[in-house]
Amino acid sequence: MRILVPFDTANPNTRLSSVLSSAERSEFAAAMCHDVCAAIRAAGHTPELLATADVAVDVPVTVDDRPLSTAVNAALSDRSLPLAVVMSDLPLVTAESIQRLCASAVDVVLAPGLGGGTNAFVTQAPEFFVDYHDGSYRKHLTIADEQGLSVETVDSFRLAVDIDDPGDLAEVLLHSEGRAATWLHNAGFALVHRDGRATAVRK
Amino acid sequence: MRILVPFDTANPNTRLSSVLSSAERSEFAAAMCHDVCAAIRAAGHTPELLATADVAVDVPVTVDDRPLSTAVNAALSDRSLPLAVVMSDLPLVTAESIQRLCASAVDVVLAPGLGGGTNAFVTQAPEFFVDYHDGSYRKHLTIADEQGLSVETVDSFRLAVDIDDPGDLAEVLLHSEGRAATWLHNAGFALVHRDGRATAVRK
Repeated sequence: MRILVPFDTANPNTRLSSVLSSAERSEFAAAMCHDVCAAIRAAGHTPELLATADVAVDVPVTVDDRPLSTAVNAALSDRSLPLAVVMSDLPLVTAESIQRLCASAVDVVLAPGLGGGTNAFVTQAPEFFVDYHDGSYRKHLTIADEQGLSVETVDSFRLAVDIDDPGDLAEVLLHSEGRAATWLHNAGFALVHRDGRATAVRK
Repeated sequence: MRILVPFDTANPNTRLSSVLSSAERSEFAAAMCHDVCAAIRAAGHTPELLATADVAVDVPVTVDDRPLSTAVNAALSDRSLPLAVVMSDLPLVTAESIQRLCASAVDVVLAPGLGGGTNAFVTQAPEFFVDYHDGSYRKHLTIADEQGLSVETVDSFRLAVDIDDPGDLAEVLLHSEGRAATWLHNAGFALVHRDGRATAVRK
């Protein structure tokens, strides 16, 4: 299956600004995106970047600088189905979690993210469309329901953890040995335990 | 399978103190524990509370007021295996996620929690023991490895989300319709979307 990976080349991961410079955020975003594409390939699928500008990577790139929902909906109507969309800030994903996402025969499979977003989905139905603004997981359930589509949710920690803010970085160090984890190690991040939860602290 | 659910009757969920009074935290903790026991029953297993003091609930209760790791290790050596331990602050768990936890035939199955903890495990091996202090998920991997035990991790969002601090409450409202979610609704909590993540705000 072709799997689109939206990628913001302009100013990625702004909520990491308190711990990473702009150049570092770009490097880290590229490392996360690499890990996602590697997991997609290892699962036997074909990653394709849907990027806001051209970017030098070893996967096919479609450039669309419109807002995320517009660009994804345009891609959904242009391409043959089934089609999956997996966010680029999911460095915990593995081949197995991608396979679980893609294993179902229902019309729409959703992978919720922490905080109510939609970190990944697969659709077999041309009627389905996305709306990523505020609480998209519930919106996508509603859209599928209103179109009379069958829908399933994949219960995956690895698909749920998107790296949005500094509190999320610990999960990368805890559960990945990919390029994003290596980047964090090399940038001086290490795990510290506080109040029973691990935090990634820069030394 | 018998599934132990550790439950702190004394001062549960202290990190919710900024949004819930002591009495409210006790009520909310009981509601979460009810949801966990209901999911265990729906999965065809038998919940048993491992509580720090006696508590009036409709499941068997073993009282042990020692620290969590000590009490769980005592229970592991007292009881016949396989035995599972599932934390009581996991109101998102469903029968299906409990079944996935219990489906494997390996020696030890671990369900990591956000922040490096161990939210649930199953052991078939008498050599296995727990150490819940700081970063227990990695510690439990090491313990299993040092004992030469086969180990698997269950990749479940519903088992990973433990309700520790106010930032976690949104997940209950987003993904559960159980007693804990109803308690939050009745206490005036509602979802608000900020910076792309949902937050539970009390009105």
